[in-house]
Amino acid sequence: MKDHVYKIVEIVGTSSEGIEQAIQAGLTRARKSIRKIRWFEVTGTRGFVENDDVIQYQVTMKVGFTLDE
Amino acid sequence: MKDHVYKIVEIVGTSSEGIEQAIQAGLTRARKSIRKIRWFEVTGTRGFVENDDVIQYQVTMKVGFTLDE
Amino acid sequence: MKDHVYKIVEIVGTSSEGIEQAIQAGLTRARKSIRKIRWFEVTGTRGFVENDDVIQYQVTMKVGFTLDE
Amino acid sequence: MKDHVYKIVEIVGTSSEGIEQAIQAGLTRARKSIRKIRWFEVTGTRGFVENDDVIQYQVTMKVGFTLDE
Amino acid sequence: MKDHVYKIVEIVGTSSEGIEQAIQAGLTRARKSIRKIRWFEVTGTRGFVENDDVIQYQVTMKVGFTLDE
Amino acid sequence: MKDHVYKIVEIVGTSSEGIEQAIQAGLTRARKSIRKIRWFEVTGTRGFVENDDVIQYQVTMKVGFTLDE
Amino acid sequence: MKDHVYKIVEIVGTSSEGIEQAIQAGLTRARKSIRKIRWFEVTGTRGFVENDDVIQYQVTMKVGFTLDE
Amino acid sequence: MKDHVYKIVEIVGTSSEGIEQAIQAGLTRARKSIRKIRWFEVTGTRGFVENDDVIQYQVTMKVGFTLDE
Amino acid sequence: MKDHVYKIVEIVGTSSEGIEQAIQAGLTRARKSIRKIRWFEVTGTRGFVENDDVIQYQVTMKVGFTLDE
Amino acid sequence: MKDHVYKIVEIVGTSSEGIEQAIQAGLTRARKSIRKIRWFEVTGTRGFVENDDVIQYQVTMKVGFTLDE
Amino acid sequence: MKDHVYKIVEIVGTSSEGIEQAIQAGLTRARKSIRKIRWFEVTGTRGFVENDDVIQYQVTMKVGFTLDE
Amino acid sequence: MKDHVYKIVEIVGTSSEGIEQAIQAGLTRARKSIRKIRWFEVTGTRGFVENDDVIQYQVTMKVGFTLDE
Repeated sequence: MKDHVYKIVEIVGTSSEGIEQAIQAGLTRARKSIRKIRWFEVTGTRGFVENDDVIQYQVTMKVGFTLDE
Repeated sequence: MKDHVYKIVEIVGTSSEGIEQAIQAGLTRARKSIRKIRWFEVTGTRGFVENDDVIQYQVTMKVGFTLDE
Repeated sequence: MKDHVYKIVEIVGTSSEGIEQAIQAGLTRARKSIRKIRWFEVTGTRGFVENDDVIQYQVTMKVGFTLDE
Repeated sequence: MKDHVYKIVEIVGTSSEGIEQAIQAGLTRARKSIRKIRWFEVTGTRGFVENDDVIQYQVTMKVGFTLDE
Repeated sequence: MKDHVYKIVEIVGTSSEGIEQAIQAGLTRARKSIRKIRWFEVTGTRGFVENDDVIQYQVTMKVGFTLDE
Repeated sequence: MKDHVYKIVEIVGTSSEGIEQAIQAGLTRARKSIRKIRWFEVTGTRGFVENDDVIQYQVTMKVGFTLDE
Repeated sequence: MKDHVYKIVEIVGTSSEGIEQAIQAGLTRARKSIRKIRWFEVTGTRGFVENDDVIQYQVTMKVGFTLDE
Repeated sequence: MKDHVYKIVEIVGTSSEGIEQAIQAGLTRARKSIRKIRWFEVTGTRGFVENDDVIQYQVTMKVGFTLDE
Repeated sequence: MKDHVYKIVEIVGTSSEGIEQAIQAGLTRARKSIRKIRWFEVTGTRGFVENDDVIQYQVTMKVGFTLDE
Repeated sequence: MKDHVYKIVEIVGTSSEGIEQAIQAGLTRARKSIRKIRWFEVTGTRGFVENDDVIQYQVTMKVGFTLDE
Repeated sequence: MKDHVYKIVEIVGTSSEGIEQAIQAGLTRARKSIRKIRWFEVTGTRGFVENDDVIQYQVTMKVGFTLDE
Repeated sequence: MKDHVYKIVEIVGTSSEGIEQAIQAGLTRARKSIRKIRWFEVTGTRGFVENDDVIQYQVTMKVGFTLDE
């Protein structure tokens, strides 16, 4: 097993549809600047409610990726 | 930015369908007695299992709303 | 299984006799304003000491109850 | 020492001036509907930043008060 | 109410489809060796990302079941 | 001091009488299948309330025991 | 209200009888070297099991007392 | 509500004057490289003491900002 | 860098004026019996409220100092 | 990526030599009854001290392994 | 004492040899892109096990460094 | 089993060599003023980095010892 070093960044993905969609939205954006994403870990699930009926899911997550040598 | 004061209450929404549906069920009930809900935060995700195959998702969440002045 | 919504409130029951008595005192008082209490969860156990020999147990607990539909 | 029962509610006080002012704002509002407040405990300190230079401190706190017998 | 004793085991269910599917996959496998499952509690939600676009949801959960007398 | 390896399992003992009785009930049941129990650690104290006056204490605890070599 | 400064020390009280007795044993011993104890807070409840049937409750607690000026 | 993705970075602001000044110092420096800061959350408050009378407040905080699309 | 050993004690500083003043009050008292204080870390911020308008801030903090060799 | 289900058990490895040796001792014993161990996570590092100079490192860890289908 | 601002990043260092080696590997890699590293804090110790006998230690740590003015 | 009362103090041991050496350094210093040390528990592992290549491990630990009767 290769001894890589990984970096972990924290992002918040959002979606009006659901928790998985918020995770996907966050990862899709993260890929624009991070290569070699390997895992994520959800650290918080929140949401905004407006006019008592619109919900936006907000999933905070740590995203781990391999650092180039 | 207006200096509001917010109150946070804790509820458990339940649904046999999924986690988002349990969140929605909790918020729908909360709206009956709380106006001006602004956000929620999931603090626990549990479920009951009966006869080894029926599942009820139970999502504990904090719900924040604006207090009238 | 019925999809109820539950509310959770936090109280502190106190007693000079013991931990269970402090829990009971808290629940007895809570019943005056809350119907359909279903469960409790202890979140802290403290006590006051006066003149180095009197102790009052103080049990912080979350109390969950069914919301009417 | 009298065996009171206490209730704990969670509020968010806000202020553009500072952390103590946000605590005070929260307690001032809480007093409108709660009598006999006895203590508070800060559980979170956040803030909003707008246009990169305005800050609103937001202090989440638990507020404990004596329940009448 | 009968005074049962319960045991809690920790498992990780996985699914490429979503969080609820990962929970279900974990419970389906757990039933093969555990009878009388009563509840579960999610303790972690992670995921693996491969080639920057495949995700496998991994839900860690505690599963509680009744011990026979 | 001998270098043993220990295993830790999590159980929930219940009793309508009190917290210590719930701990004892859990340990009594655990002894049926585990030899050489060495310690326990309480990780949660809950209870069920039915008809507003019956309480069953539920103590979640980790139980450690020596593994045979 | 006088602006005292308090110190907090951590002790473990033990008893074969129960949790309250372990707390009392810890406080009784603490009083030998500490004057003006004001409060305690339980931070852990453990126990030792020997020969599968003897239990010693061990309650870890923080003990707060007033520092003389 | 627009589905933004946010990034969270962790910084430590310091000041010899007070906690709010340490927060402000941290945010002022963060603005040099981060645009569109939206919120912060205090995760730790420490301080250094030298020669028994100089204090430097050190506030660790998470800072959230909007990622450009 | 010299390999010192440090000791950490926990105190509660109080002040009716504010959080920094409560920290200072705690450190001022601690210096009477502890030499070579190096750092502190806030572990809790509470307050007492009397007659609905007097507040005493109570800051619990760990204080670290160098042990003489 | 195959959708496995994993089980997690908690053990305590001990060694008078060091932390890594305690981890290894725990894993070596675990392999006797568990096949397909995949990962471990340290959840606590303790030690016993006897006669003021003998130390036994005790590392509590969660051990994850693949469940057969 | 100069009022610096520090940034904290999270990395995972890995090594097949031991925990300190994993920390060192993480810091060695971090130095390639970060100047003025001042401290680290271990936030997790895990490991991978393959074929039941190869172990790779994985140490998650926060790394703090001074931001240039 | 004798019903002792134990006290727990918190220290930080440091060493440029490794984690176990930092633990040993802390215990060696603690023995100068504490008799009958029975156990320790690591609560934090940090380190200082100077000139990008000198590391001092700093292990925060709780040390428990028997109080004389």
